[in-house]
Amino acid sequence: MLKHHVREMLQKRVGGQNYLDAPEDLICYSYDATLSETRPEAVLLPESTAQVSEIMKIADRESIPVTARGAGTNLSGGSIPQNKGIVLAFTRMNRILEISKKNRLAVVQPGVVNGHLQVELSRQGLFYPPDPGSLNVSTLGGNVAENASGLKGAKYGVTRDYLLGLTVVLADGRIIKTGGRTVKNVTGMDLTSLFCGAEGALGIITEITLKLIPQPEAQRSIQASFADLDAAGHTVTHIISSGILPVALELMDSTTINLIEDYTRFGLPRDAAGLLLIMVDGAKESLGRQVDRIKAICREQGAERIKVANSPEENDALWEARRNQFAVMTRARPTCIVEDMTVPISDLPAMILAIRKIAEKYDLLIACTAHAGDGNLHPHFLTDKSDPEEWRRVKAAEAEIVNKAAELGGALSGEHGIGMAKTEYMDLFLHRDSRRIMGEIKKVLDPKGILNPGKWL
Amino acid sequence: MLKHHVREMLQKRVGGQNYLDAPEDLICYSYDATLSETRPEAVLLPESTAQVSEIMKIADRESIPVTARGAGTNLSGGSIPQNKGIVLAFTRMNRILEISKKNRLAVVQPGVVNGHLQVELSRQGLFYPPDPGSLNVSTLGGNVAENASGLKGAKYGVTRDYLLGLTVVLADGRIIKTGGRTVKNVTGMDLTSLFCGAEGALGIITEITLKLIPQPEAQRSIQASFADLDAAGHTVTHIISSGILPVALELMDSTTINLIEDYTRFGLPRDAAGLLLIMVDGAKESLGRQVDRIKAICREQGAERIKVANSPEENDALWEARRNQFAVMTRARPTCIVEDMTVPISDLPAMILAIRKIAEKYDLLIACTAHAGDGNLHPHFLTDKSDPEEWRRVKAAEAEIVNKAAELGGALSGEHGIGMAKTEYMDLFLHRDSRRIMGEIKKVLDPKGILNPGKWL
Repeated sequence: MLKHHVREMLQKRVGGQNYLDAPEDLICYSYDATLSETRPEAVLLPESTAQVSEIMKIADRESIPVTARGAGTNLSGGSIPQNKGIVLAFTRMNRILEISKKNRLAVVQPGVVNGHLQVELSRQGLFYPPDPGSLNVSTLGGNVAENASGLKGAKYGVTRDYLLGLTVVLADGRIIKTGGRTVKNVTGMDLTSLFCGAEGALGIITEITLKLIPQPEAQRSIQASFADLDAAGHTVTHIISSGILPVALELMDSTTINLIEDYTRFGLPRDAAGLLLIMVDGAKESLGRQVDRIKAICREQGAERIKVANSPEENDALWEARRNQFAVMTRARPTCIVEDMTVPISDLPAMILAIRKIAEKYDLLIACTAHAGDGNLHPHFLTDKSDPEEWRRVKAAEAEIVNKAAELGGALSGEHGIGMAKTEYMDLFLHRDSRRIMGEIKKVLDPKGILNPGKWL
Repeated sequence: MLKHHVREMLQKRVGGQNYLDAPEDLICYSYDATLSETRPEAVLLPESTAQVSEIMKIADRESIPVTARGAGTNLSGGSIPQNKGIVLAFTRMNRILEISKKNRLAVVQPGVVNGHLQVELSRQGLFYPPDPGSLNVSTLGGNVAENASGLKGAKYGVTRDYLLGLTVVLADGRIIKTGGRTVKNVTGMDLTSLFCGAEGALGIITEITLKLIPQPEAQRSIQASFADLDAAGHTVTHIISSGILPVALELMDSTTINLIEDYTRFGLPRDAAGLLLIMVDGAKESLGRQVDRIKAICREQGAERIKVANSPEENDALWEARRNQFAVMTRARPTCIVEDMTVPISDLPAMILAIRKIAEKYDLLIACTAHAGDGNLHPHFLTDKSDPEEWRRVKAAEAEIVNKAAELGGALSGEHGIGMAKTEYMDLFLHRDSRRIMGEIKKVLDPKGILNPGKWL
């Protein structure tokens, strides 16, 4: 519990109804989608940038840790209040402030759910591409703080690519605006990108201006199954090399396929060793050609069955099946750990092979899936943390997989962030001097270290 | 001149042939495309990252200012060695190290000319969109340092959107690598974006990994002339609102049209008050529809003549005429000053009107052109700096124009950088606290202030 006078001050700032510290409330804000859990001392639900500023002034004066939280879907412990203190939950700052077709932008509060914005935009023929698996729950504030991405990264990039500007409350309560309302803006350093992906450790994001693009005219989806997972991996490289830029190019192994089928009965081919789900979009006349070309490549690479979604309903069902992936994985065994490395696309087959061999070596169940079109792999360890012997094998296998990604010139995390879960591997991917620079930038922006402390930084 | 022992050390590091300090050499590296001029004490032409590191170690020890230079096409004084010292010219680090179709990336040295890379890529069906007006001369190192953009920003964004990773030599000679070879990478803070647009004030970029996209299948261009410049401006807003995303959407006023015609005889309509040049690209079957829709909007908005380029040659000639814009402007009168503000697209007509009124008020010749599709205006003051009375009017008009852009929520610079030329207006666009943060980040990375000193930072 916070000191009495601090509690009173904070309650006065946000109003009693927006200050929670009953045990049952604190528990709800003590975890995210990772395995860790730490109970905060208070949860505050600010309603405005001004309130966040007031809260940060108090937190700064009293040196209280502050962890910003969207929907708590984070997969690396980014939203866990590791050093206790205050959780700033953005549930009540969930308004879309502006959608401008003329300026191709939207201004949103951080608590807006990604999927809600998508629905509003599609009504106006507009499109905001980043779509993390959690899009129907996760908030844009969280998406920005983690530089989230999703299925459409291959063609449409990541959250950072759609940021025009931010309002940020600094650690001491001062408010700054970064960027602006235009795509081109070189007025000073790019602070917008610096706050993006910083996991709330440099400042609290309270308003977001997003670049939008017109909604693609049409899309088509293809499902290609392979008797050999490696062949599926090689097919990905061939599609990318061919000059087609698919919106999404997803790879699933047989474990994943069967788990999805166990729970959803979508009709995925249970006997396939590897499955590619491919989405193309663009001008409606061009889709037939793109689909034909991809089908031909799949066939050349040995695809056994190729199915093209022929209606919007079939298309949606296909991607719904894919979106259920994480949910079904978590049901398979008591513990599910998702890795998130990326490798250069041409190294995808090598990485997949390595994961399979490591799974065999340590006798573990690792379901291998990938946003293959952008080299982002999500091996899921399906395990049981309460079994110490198996858990030791999991940690050894994880280390080998991560080392392999480093060896291939990959990245430790593509979209889930570092948080706490991946701290131990940072030195494999980041040079000491780069980490030192990041640490010093952290000190510039958060000299007392009160913003999301206890994480990798 | 540098001290004798420093000169000897540096010559030993880069080789005598790569160390220039004859007056005639120093003059060549004393200016860029702005009006200022400062002679450096030595020009070094490094051949490798290791050499740059050695140079920086010496510069750090001896506290010698170092200004990195690409082709010196900068329009804001970014490459002028304002505090003398060393110019690091990247002429000899001009190799394309890798083009990978499979990984959709290129790795280049900073001295590679943008246009040279474009040619190499187009042979392989690949595309790197950022195309500053200077693309046939300017280098990718300079482009990254300024976060340059160009004609294609409306659809394809800016240099930063295509950066996967950098090799950077820090002020004290240490070498770091930022980012990597994948689109998704959230391993630590986004230092790549921090160095992009920092005008060489945070580190020296010695290697660049660029994201590539497939070359668009086809493109078409449209030229629409208007008897009224405001109508041309409003047409831009209507095109953007319509859901079409043109590759380029350029606006020219009558002064610009006539200057281009005086020198190039391309056949632009001399009697038009405003001209739009519009490029669309994509699947070949979709272009006819896009062109028809744009033509219809132009007609609705009162276009007098609409001409569609019917062959690749006509298309190229049209854009060649546009690319000559800056060159012809500089010939018109003794002095040419290019502004570079951006405003939200819907405010473009208001900004154009303001510029016209200000030109009238101060009795000045201001040729107004814009990358209108992304709100980036380039009013060119055609003037004579040697006439003190006219120059006073120029400065007063400039201040009014810049203030108007600030009032409309625009940016001081869209793509030319701040350098020295725009320093005086920074406070209109950047909050004191943002500037303070930038200043402190500068101190983290360049504690002695030897990297490109004397500029806005």
